[in-house]
This record gives sequence, C-alpha cells and structure tokens, in this order.
Amino acid sequence: MSEANETARVEAFSDGVLAIVITLLVLEIKVPVMPHGVSDAELGAALLQLLPKVLAWVVSFLFIFVFWVSHHDLFARIRRVDRGLLWWNGLFLLAVSFTPFPTALVGEHPDSRWAVALLGGAFALSGLFFTGMRHHVSLRVRSLDLPEDSIRRALRRGRLSPILYGLATLLAFASPRFALAMIALIPFLFVAVPKPRQRS
Amino acid sequence: MSEANETARVEAFSDGVLAIVITLLVLEIKVPVMPHGVSDAELGAALLQLLPKVLAWVVSFLFIFVFWVSHHDLFARIRRVDRGLLWWNGLFLLAVSFTPFPTALVGEHPDSRWAVALLGGAFALSGLFFTGMRHHVSLRVRSLDLPEDSIRRALRRGRLSPILYGLATLLAFASPRFALAMIALIPFLFVAVPKPRQRS
Amino acid sequence: MSEANETARVEAFSDGVLAIVITLLVLEIKVPVMPHGVSDAELGAALLQLLPKVLAWVVSFLFIFVFWVSHHDLFARIRRVDRGLLWWNGLFLLAVSFTPFPTALVGEHPDSRWAVALLGGAFALSGLFFTGMRHHVSLRVRSLDLPEDSIRRALRRGRLSPILYGLATLLAFASPRFALAMIALIPFLFVAVPKPRQRS
Amino acid sequence: MSEANETARVEAFSDGVLAIVITLLVLEIKVPVMPHGVSDAELGAALLQLLPKVLAWVVSFLFIFVFWVSHHDLFARIRRVDRGLLWWNGLFLLAVSFTPFPTALVGEHPDSRWAVALLGGAFALSGLFFTGMRHHVSLRVRSLDLPEDSIRRALRRGRLSPILYGLATLLAFASPRFALAMIALIPFLFVAVPKPRQRS
Repeated sequence: MSEANETARVEAFSDGVLAIVITLLVLEIKVPVMPHGVSDAELGAALLQLLPKVLAWVVSFLFIFVFWVSHHDLFARIRRVDRGLLWWNGLFLLAVSFTPFPTALVGEHPDSRWAVALLGGAFALSGLFFTGMRHHVSLRVRSLDLPEDSIRRALRRGRLSPILYGLATLLAFASPRFALAMIALIPFLFVAVPKPRQRS
Repeated sequence: MSEANETARVEAFSDGVLAIVITLLVLEIKVPVMPHGVSDAELGAALLQLLPKVLAWVVSFLFIFVFWVSHHDLFARIRRVDRGLLWWNGLFLLAVSFTPFPTALVGEHPDSRWAVALLGGAFALSGLFFTGMRHHVSLRVRSLDLPEDSIRRALRRGRLSPILYGLATLLAFASPRFALAMIALIPFLFVAVPKPRQRS
Repeated sequence: MSEANETARVEAFSDGVLAIVITLLVLEIKVPVMPHGVSDAELGAALLQLLPKVLAWVVSFLFIFVFWVSHHDLFARIRRVDRGLLWWNGLFLLAVSFTPFPTALVGEHPDSRWAVALLGGAFALSGLFFTGMRHHVSLRVRSLDLPEDSIRRALRRGRLSPILYGLATLLAFASPRFALAMIALIPFLFVAVPKPRQRS
Repeated sequence: MSEANETARVEAFSDGVLAIVITLLVLEIKVPVMPHGVSDAELGAALLQLLPKVLAWVVSFLFIFVFWVSHHDLFARIRRVDRGLLWWNGLFLLAVSFTPFPTALVGEHPDSRWAVALLGGAFALSGLFFTGMRHHVSLRVRSLDLPEDSIRRALRRGRLSPILYGLATLLAFASPRFALAMIALIPFLFVAVPKPRQRS
C-alpha cells in the first residue's frame, strides 16, 4: 500500500466517525409522547418546547462540520502516517464522539451550568487533541507538505480553538447563557477569517 | 492531494451522512410493547397500526435516495472544491440529517398539520440548499464540467424541487393528507423525466 | 469522473448502508432494566432470557454479511452504472435497511407467525431486488464483465435466494420454529456451494 | 477490478463497521431523566453517577481503536482477498459489533461478574477471530507481503490478545474489579511494545 493510500484510510475512518456523530446528534430530538389525534395546537406547543434541543443540535452540527473541514484541510497536506498521528487522531475522535451526550444534556437543561460546561469541555478537548495532532505533524515528524510560514500561521490559528472553548467552559459557571452563545459563535470565527492556502 | 481526491473526500463524507440518515430512519419503527406469548391476532393488529410509520419511512427513504442520486450526478461533474461548495454542502447535509425527526413525527401523527408541514419544510430546505450548491458551482465559481445549455437546463429543473416541496408545506395547513401524498409523489417526477446527460 | 469511479461511489454508498444496518442490529439487544446491586444469579437469569434476541441478531448479521459478499462480487464485474442499476440497488437497500425491525420483532416474539413471516418476507424481498439487479446488469444492459455461461450460472443460482426465503415466509404460518431454522440455514447454502469464479 | 481495489473494498466495509461501533458506544450514556429546572447540584450528582458508563465507554473505545490500527496494519500487507479472508473478517466484525451490548451492561452493573465476563468474552472472541484471520493470510494462503520472520513475530504477538482477554474473562468470576482493570490495561500493552515494521 502506498503512503497516499495509508493517509486515505485514516481519513476514511475519521470521516466515518465524524459523519456518524454529526448524523446521530438528531436522534436526541425525540418525538413528544402524545396521544394519537392530539390537536394541532397542542402538538405545535409541544414542538415549540423542543426548540432548545434543535438549537443544541445546530450548535454541535456546526462544531463538527467545521472540524471536519479542518481535518480535511490538514490531511490534504500530510505526507505520511506514523503511530503518533494515529494516536492523536484517535484521541480527537474520542473527544468528538463524546459530544452527542453533552448536546443532548444541553438540549434538556439549557440553563444548567454543568450541561453547558460539559459541552464546552468536550469541544475544548476536541480542539486540544486536534491542535496536538497539528503540532505532531508540523513540528515533530514534519510530515506536512506546506511552506514553513504557512505551517506556523496555521499552528497559531489552531491553538485559538481549544483556548476559546476552554474560556467558554469556565464562563459556563458564571453564566450558562453567555457561555452557550459563545460556544455557538466560535465556529463562525474560523469561517469568517480567510484561511492561508497556497496551492503549490 | 489532487483535486480529484478532494472532490472524492467531500463525496465520501456526504455519502456517509446520507447512508447513515437513510438507515437510521427505520429505527423510528419500534417493536410494539406487548407481553411475551401474545396471540398472533393481537400482534398482527398491533403491526398493522405501524403502517403509517412504514409509509413515512418509505417516503423519506425515497426522498433521500433521489437526492443521493442527484448529489452523485452533480459531483461527477465538479472539477474543484472551494470553501463555498463545502458550506453549501454542509447546509444541505444539515437539512437532510434533520429529516429523521419529522419522519418519526409524521409516522406518529400522520394527520397533523404541523407534522406534515415540518416534513415538507425539511425537504424544501434540503432542496433549497442543494439548488444553492448547484448555482454556486454552475454560475459563481463555474467549476462544473458540462456544456452551457446542459447547466442551464439542470438549474431550471433543480429549482423545481424546493418550489414543489415548499408548496406541499403550505398545502399541509389546508389538507395534511393531500400534502403528504404530494410529498410522496414528488420524487417520482424526478425519476420519470429523463435527465439531460451527455457524456463528453 | 471515470466509469470505474462511478461504480466505486455506488459501492461506497451501498457499503455504508450495509455496514450501518449490520451494526445497528445489535442496538435491539437492550440491557435488562434491573436495580443496581442486583445479584449475579438474577442478572445471569435476565441475560439468559435475551438469548432469542442474540440468535435473531446472529441470523440477520449473517444474512446481511452474505449479501454484502454477493454485492461485492457482483460490483467487481460491473463495467458501467446506469439509472436502472441505481434504482435496483436503491430498492435492494430499502429492503435490507428494513431488516432491523423484523429482527427486533423476532427477538421479542420468536414464536410468533407474523414476526417470523415478516423477517422471511424482508429477506425474500432483499433477495428479489438483488436478483432483479443481477438480471438488469446481466441481460438488459449487459454491463457485466464475465463469460456468458458464468453469467447464466450465477443468474440461476441467484434466483434461489428469493425463492427459498419466500418458502420460509410461507412456512412461518405453519411452523414459526421450522421457518426460523430454515431462514437461519439458507446463508450457509450460499457459502458451502463453491461459486463459479474465473479471473479473466 | 484490480486486487488492490478488492482489498480496499473489504477495508472500507470493515472501517465502516468499526467506525459505527466506536461511535454508537456513546449512545449508551443516556441523559439522566430529571425535571426541567433541576438544581445544578442535583444534576451534577446525577452526572457523577454516570461515571462508570463513561469509563466503560472509554475502555471499549480504546479496544476498538487498537483493533482498527491492527486491522489497518494487517490489510496494508495483504496482497489478495479470498473467501476465507472474507469469512474470518466477517466473524471478527460480528464479535466487535456485539461489544456495545456488554459495554452498556458493564456501565450499568460494573460490579457484576456476568457483565465483566461478557465484556471480556466479547473482546477475547474478537481477538480470536482476528488471530484466525492473521493465521489464514500468513500461513494458509500466504497472501501477506512481509518477510517470513516478521510474519512469525506478528503471529506470536497477535496470539497474546485473545489469551489475555480470555484470562480476564475467567478472572471476572473471581474479582470483577480486577478483571475490568486488566481489560482496560491490555490495549496499552499493544501500544507500548514497538511493532516490528519494515518498509520494503
């Protein structure tokens, strides 16, 4: 198997996990238990109460999608797979695959300090392991196919994600509402700022 | 990574999400809770009551399958992946991965205005984002490998899907039954009409 | 996109659906609800009662695995993808992705005529659509890369699967036990008989 | 289809199953059912009680991840796919896809002999089938692209996994706690010892 194929298989497994996590999230939005033939007004009211769950789902969907894009960008530049990369990637997937639980928890208890802190913590941990993986391929095994200054810029930028989610986790204990708003907005930061990208 | 590979990875992730959504749908059909050793007549009657859920499952399966075919056709012609494409595709996957919820809701309350409108709305939104993606690759970044007139025809045809599902959503408030029948039939329209396809 | 790639994408989507179905099956085996600190003897007894569910899971796992192998063999020989193939494949996936429901039903009510007939029926339908797909690529569009006599032999052999599962479905109304045993044994028939395979 | 492609498709299906199993595990950690507006102290206490489930999840995640890495390493060296390999791989996936059940059981009843023995047994069986697959490709069909002494070393090392998990299963009847600790630690053994790897 060529090295390109090895990178491809790690990507395929990661894509699988990320695709499953992003799709499983919606299972936490459960159909309200009501008798058949319930009036439309009552059903409508019950559906409205699901709004926090829908919002929690959108927040986590966006989070995972942005990380999938980053994962995609990073792996497009990795030249070879070593054991270290496999383990960093495994830790990243561990943290990401935990996120359906705090998502469901926040959907159920959106005003709870613990729920929001657990969501922020799971996101911060995912970001931390992703940054660890980026460091590993950028500085330790130097298997990244990018000019030196692009690597440094991406590293600096990447560190921002665990720091911001970590701050949101702390903020959850002061104000769960603000912390949740911060968690919801962080992904847009990584979308808005144009990424340094040079096609070699 | 070559550009062909990049398209392939977006496809692989999308295929993953679509395959998971299409398979998860059946989980909403739950085994009726009955004592062991229940008579066959009673179990048969309980199974018959699941028929609306089975029909809702078939409707959503068909919807997702037809969109998978369209996604497959579109990506076979896309020459390069840009950020805009990633985001349109992400929004499309967001809308599609929501569909198990209204499917379960319609299975439980097939006569409810809200349930049918939510299903139609989720399908209309999926169609809208898919059309947005098609516009993006056809007109904005022009990364579609097709003759100009085929592109224009596909665009006109593609716009039909969100419009029809949108109309079905509105119709749900007048007659949920008719709206549901319309939602069930729309996919066949896209199957029956032969697609303009020219192998270059 | 080359034709090899197009076949690959249909395979990838089908593999995704089959992998998800085969893995979801186990979710129907639920942890018995018992108080914490229950005695080992009581928990052991409760686990023993799950045996029919474990057996139903093994039966369906084997069924899907054998069809995955057949799907793998068939697609290895298909030279091009047409609309007809997409639709036969879609119908096959529809039938296969329904199987978790009758599997759970049989696990819950292994002596019920309806449960066993529904399992047999879902398997017969999967076999029927698979046979339809094989006919389509063998005789209608002739896109199969195999010598004529191998194609004919595979067609004859393939027709056996829906017929046998169909007979098991009918048998379920006379004796659910025998029908279930028959459903469990059919896959081994396709394993034992060596498949005509000629590497060109 | 070339032989490289055939190996790729078996890998893709296996990756799919492993990715789904590793991601489904978290679904067993359920949001505690509590009234809305419950105090943070009460919710925090309820979350703490989920700790055994979180630990069981990490143990099984690690187990599956280590086997994915081994599967990845093995298939990178397999030159051709025969029926025997397909069946050993199928049995391996059967055993692995069962693991969410004992994981949930251990999370619910961490002190139960039966729960821990079932987890150890499922892991031992997975290891046994993986070892059977390695034997098949190493000694029977000799389709492994590695020097003779590397193959022998890998075989000896591979046999260790079912033996150790088998011992842990037996130990569960004497001390579930010790057995669980042993099950949790075995994967690190395979991480710590450097794998003989020679790039040809």
